[in-house]
Amino acid sequence: MSKIILHNYFRSSTSFRVRAALNLKGIEYDYVAHHLRLGGHREPGFLNVNPQGLVPSLVWSDGTVVHQSLAILEFIDDVVPDPPLLPGDAHGRARVRMLAQMIACDIHPVNNLRILNGLRSRFGADDDAVADWFRHWVEETFAPMETMLADDAATGEFCHGDTVTIADLCLVAQIANNARFDVDMRPYPTLGRIHERCMAIPQIAAAAPANQPDAE
Amino acid sequence: MSKIILHNYFRSSTSFRVRAALNLKGIEYDYVAHHLRLGGHREPGFLNVNPQGLVPSLVWSDGTVVHQSLAILEFIDDVVPDPPLLPGDAHGRARVRMLAQMIACDIHPVNNLRILNGLRSRFGADDDAVADWFRHWVEETFAPMETMLADDAATGEFCHGDTVTIADLCLVAQIANNARFDVDMRPYPTLGRIHERCMAIPQIAAAAPANQPDAE
Repeated sequence: MSKIILHNYFRSSTSFRVRAALNLKGIEYDYVAHHLRLGGHREPGFLNVNPQGLVPSLVWSDGTVVHQSLAILEFIDDVVPDPPLLPGDAHGRARVRMLAQMIACDIHPVNNLRILNGLRSRFGADDDAVADWFRHWVEETFAPMETMLADDAATGEFCHGDTVTIADLCLVAQIANNARFDVDMRPYPTLGRIHERCMAIPQIAAAAPANQPDAE
Repeated sequence: MSKIILHNYFRSSTSFRVRAALNLKGIEYDYVAHHLRLGGHREPGFLNVNPQGLVPSLVWSDGTVVHQSLAILEFIDDVVPDPPLLPGDAHGRARVRMLAQMIACDIHPVNNLRILNGLRSRFGADDDAVADWFRHWVEETFAPMETMLADDAATGEFCHGDTVTIADLCLVAQIANNARFDVDMRPYPTLGRIHERCMAIPQIAAAAPANQPDAE
């Protein structure tokens, strides 16, 4: 068994999700930084690890390599079940995965660095147009998510009950990202309350971008 | 127990994934079509079902509502385990989820109708620019996915071994979508072979867009 490695980047919100999960499970890992803005994820050495050239990638102690942050979160929860990051019942798991995917499929992919760069290079989008694009897709999902969380008795201190799940990890990472584009959080009091509760947990706070070795 | 309902749209590739899963499990359902191009998903009646106003949404026989196609696939697999759509081991599940998410997070979200419409309305993108955008993000993921599948002994008749998993359902649905933008499949022989194998399965073929009641 060798050391666990997380290939990641301090500012990557998908990396934040995974760092938080590893911390909550008490799993030690080596932090390998790839500077996305400088193309560090396109180096041949890393492409051998992940042909997709994206972070995060997890190298487990048995050599297993897993890419895609939600797949990594589920894998970690499968192999280190305590504390659980998904509910024990099928209906609860469906709700948590749904909430996580609202962020992981409908916000993050359309707002990540390569897409924003594509808007600039292909369509001449300037800083204002990029920021407006970013905020639009956050709002398109955060508004219904606020409704769904506020109206459901299954919501507790966290997105689902009173324990942290993968939905919360996606939420805190997205809100950290939002800060760079001045997203107004006032229309989303439930999301804001859950975010605050999560960030009071030392293992989640320690996973935030500002607390990483490659933070600028 | 009332009838199971799938809110969907014939051309939606995320709906295709879920229809195929329901068919493979032998689950009968009522097909409720929402015409995305005509804004059918924004009608108040549907927003009461899904505040996000997106398809697919599944209404289970006990009244449980699940949105987000990957969460729906996992829920269906949880409550109707046979035949399984995920491997029995944690490492296999991680690989299948990773492959599924490469499509579900890195291709589909950036290429769906609302994003392509956004490129037109915000940046004046014309048909050629939209098609080029679509193909670019398919290629960015299909190229490494071809490498990962071709180089791994875990790949079998399907993406993972010789049984259908959620990775295959995401793949066939994406390839159906690609046809509308003339994506050249020649660089991806493994993906093409798996697609062909999947489409020979009647339950998957029956879920294709052309075979739905609202097909145009």
